[in-house]
Amino acid sequence: MIGITSTPGAAGPERDDDLRYERVARCFRELIEHGTLRPGERLPSVRRCSEQQGVSVATVIQAYRCLENRGFLEARPQSGYYVSARRWAPPREPDKSAPSARPVRVSVSELAMEVIRSGRRSDLVKLGATLPNLEFYPVRQLNRTLAAAARRDPVGANLYEPPPGHLRLRQQVARRALEAGCSLTPDDIVITVGATEALSLALRAVASPGDTIAIESPCYFGILQMIESLGMRACEMPTFPREGICLDELRKRLRPCAIKACLFTPNFSNPLGSCMPDAKKEALVQLLSERGIPLIEDDIYGNLAFDGKRPKTAKSFDTEGWVVLCDSFTKTLSPGYRVGWLAPGRFRARVEHLKYVTTGASPTLPQMAVADFLQNGGYDHHLRRVRRAYARQMQEMSEAIGRHFPEGTRLTRPSGGMCLWVELPARTDSLELYRRALAEGISIAPGPLFSAKQRYRNFVRLSVAHPWTPRLEQAVMRLGQIAAAV
Amino acid sequence: MIGITSTPGAAGPERDDDLRYERVARCFRELIEHGTLRPGERLPSVRRCSEQQGVSVATVIQAYRCLENRGFLEARPQSGYYVSARRWAPPREPDKSAPSARPVRVSVSELAMEVIRSGRRSDLVKLGATLPNLEFYPVRQLNRTLAAAARRDPVGANLYEPPPGHLRLRQQVARRALEAGCSLTPDDIVITVGATEALSLALRAVASPGDTIAIESPCYFGILQMIESLGMRACEMPTFPREGICLDELRKRLRPCAIKACLFTPNFSNPLGSCMPDAKKEALVQLLSERGIPLIEDDIYGNLAFDGKRPKTAKSFDTEGWVVLCDSFTKTLSPGYRVGWLAPGRFRARVEHLKYVTTGASPTLPQMAVADFLQNGGYDHHLRRVRRAYARQMQEMSEAIGRHFPEGTRLTRPSGGMCLWVELPARTDSLELYRRALAEGISIAPGPLFSAKQRYRNFVRLSVAHPWTPRLEQAVMRLGQIAAAV
Repeated sequence: MIGITSTPGAAGPERDDDLRYERVARCFRELIEHGTLRPGERLPSVRRCSEQQGVSVATVIQAYRCLENRGFLEARPQSGYYVSARRWAPPREPDKSAPSARPVRVSVSELAMEVIRSGRRSDLVKLGATLPNLEFYPVRQLNRTLAAAARRDPVGANLYEPPPGHLRLRQQVARRALEAGCSLTPDDIVITVGATEALSLALRAVASPGDTIAIESPCYFGILQMIESLGMRACEMPTFPREGICLDELRKRLRPCAIKACLFTPNFSNPLGSCMPDAKKEALVQLLSERGIPLIEDDIYGNLAFDGKRPKTAKSFDTEGWVVLCDSFTKTLSPGYRVGWLAPGRFRARVEHLKYVTTGASPTLPQMAVADFLQNGGYDHHLRRVRRAYARQMQEMSEAIGRHFPEGTRLTRPSGGMCLWVELPARTDSLELYRRALAEGISIAPGPLFSAKQRYRNFVRLSVAHPWTPRLEQAVMRLGQIAAAV
Repeated sequence: MIGITSTPGAAGPERDDDLRYERVARCFRELIEHGTLRPGERLPSVRRCSEQQGVSVATVIQAYRCLENRGFLEARPQSGYYVSARRWAPPREPDKSAPSARPVRVSVSELAMEVIRSGRRSDLVKLGATLPNLEFYPVRQLNRTLAAAARRDPVGANLYEPPPGHLRLRQQVARRALEAGCSLTPDDIVITVGATEALSLALRAVASPGDTIAIESPCYFGILQMIESLGMRACEMPTFPREGICLDELRKRLRPCAIKACLFTPNFSNPLGSCMPDAKKEALVQLLSERGIPLIEDDIYGNLAFDGKRPKTAKSFDTEGWVVLCDSFTKTLSPGYRVGWLAPGRFRARVEHLKYVTTGASPTLPQMAVADFLQNGGYDHHLRRVRRAYARQMQEMSEAIGRHFPEGTRLTRPSGGMCLWVELPARTDSLELYRRALAEGISIAPGPLFSAKQRYRNFVRLSVAHPWTPRLEQAVMRLGQIAAAV
């Protein structure tokens, strides 16, 4: 079922409430899954349940909402919570990936640019792109914040902000990083032009042309293109669809493949949607730190956990500065503002220098605006809204795939982010599917984009970046029909 | 005398007026230089002169203003134009530079970062930095333009603008490029984060790590740092202080030094302030195009000709796409907006791809704001104002150096831009001068910054980026005293 992965455990008394609501939610989930509570049946009232379970009313509400977000329950106004009528048997998950063990030169850019360019047509139903619909951004509020910042400090807004970037923004970023388990000071942070520049600077800071970078397999094509453009090699690592990188295989390959650095997305990776449990993140950081191998951590989806529990970053387990944490506000605040950042650990001086000679500085006003927006508290409210929306859309999309895609289709079960990784029957050619769908006005991201040597021919990435509509459902249905034919 | 270089010739009937006012100006300049008209003497009234010379009143006014900008005349309200009282014999110019003929690895970054960092203290008298004082920027007007753009199109302002960037901005840039002799379409242009990203993308598009780039000697340290950070080599070319690169020597070195590309600043280079005559630009482009060697042209000072005549770009002579023209609005509109662009010629696809994997996109709102500002005509008015200001400041600074610096000091005579290149007596150690001046609250850019292997030990770059004040004069005097002592 979508969204049900084991929640990373967390110790400490401040988590007691969380544990309680999870216990209640798990209890009801099991009753639903085993058929004790059946579709359409009403759950005990919040007050009743609070008495039965010996927990507060607030805890029950939290548990019910969590189950609602995950699609188990439906709230009916003035009436209560009911078991969702459309519980369904989801398609099987894909297996652990099994990429080649050899480092290779990447050659994906041409295909990627073709897909990117063709996806810009405004008439398309965009099932593949991970750039959220603008209704999931606080567009007007952010613009107002920016205009106010310019009025308040017209001169400052025009000043050059040399690396590491605008101090108030770095302060806000450091403050928020606490939620992801990171103790960062403003001095630990360098502001960038989106996560793209953050990742690019990180790669250049820790490795040189010819060096080998370990990546997840499948891997976001933007990362593959970046490695290709920097003349580096990629070594694709076997990855579990729920928990990310296989640590055993990573350990085995570090030395024979001469891995210079790792670039992973532990939280809600693209395209798998996998989320590494905290203990595994800790083990990963330890494994790499012991060997002096830098880990570049891409965390752009970390704020989009469907259950609202912000997973920790690998960086939070980094005691020696080997983790370079990269993030941005592109997926959550504004794609057009292009505000990203990185916490480069021991590579700070080099990153700052590279930033200086690559773009000189980031534009000042967007930095001021994002700092104000974070400071004024609009961000958390906004995040809650979009997390719920993506959770619902993930559920709708997964069910639609279950209904409309060919027998034998497999599907990931992300607990956050906005990507779904779909394995079609082995005979399917996803490039042909991509072309035929495009001809009918539907864009998807074909599997070969997500590997250095264009494997994953029978896979596609779909995304939940757009609100679910009958038009989208129609497009998924049509895609399923084409998939059955190619 | 400052600012008096031969003005590049231009054919065609539309230039008749220009030629007429130049003729009038030249005539009076000669009368002044030969002592026929003496300091303090009044010139013929505009009307009288118009009759004498058989030209229009407007032409005379243009000629007088031109001489005023160059420091030959002073306008006295309600009275007329007078020969400037402070005509002076400027120090000699430096000789043509004579750098080593061998390509070398660059090692200037550490010193450069030290100087950059120390220069950030707000209490300094900044005699070295080329970032103009904010009073030379249309700060409020530009902010208003930006806020209006955000109100007009709140959604567009938040949209991701994939490379090549915002169409309306590219249209405006293409339109303005006509003035620099370039016929560009919006499709020829890629928007960047300042000239820094433009130059960096250009270098990466035309060369690889290990390749040799020919540069001017002395050369702006930002370019040296960029070459260093990309693992490329620099081959420094002998350069004339007024006319830039020595073409004969360039021709001789192209093959033995295996020059992969050239990166020059033909218009008002940094630090020399040299401006290559048009015929020489044409010969340069022909020389390189014949051999298939790309020319990266940095034109960020091109709009700052003291006499208001925008020199052509080398790109305007480029028929085969070998010239990559780089420019930005950082020196003229806003340092904080970070809007730059390049016209990559035959390297367009590669530049666009590199932009995509390096910063993804430039922020949208600053692009919209600059497009509106260019479109609404405020830019030309603003340029006229700052050009006059820099011309005056250049005159003041040059004279002050003449008064206060040690015997034997030499000085360039830029006709645009904001840099002065000062050759101190051979025994002078400019690094020591830099340190002792800094200790007294004066920042300068020491000569070794401007060479791959830290030559130019007895040179400094001064700039005219700040309005001339008694405090500045005081600082130049003090600098001269320290220079005499180190």
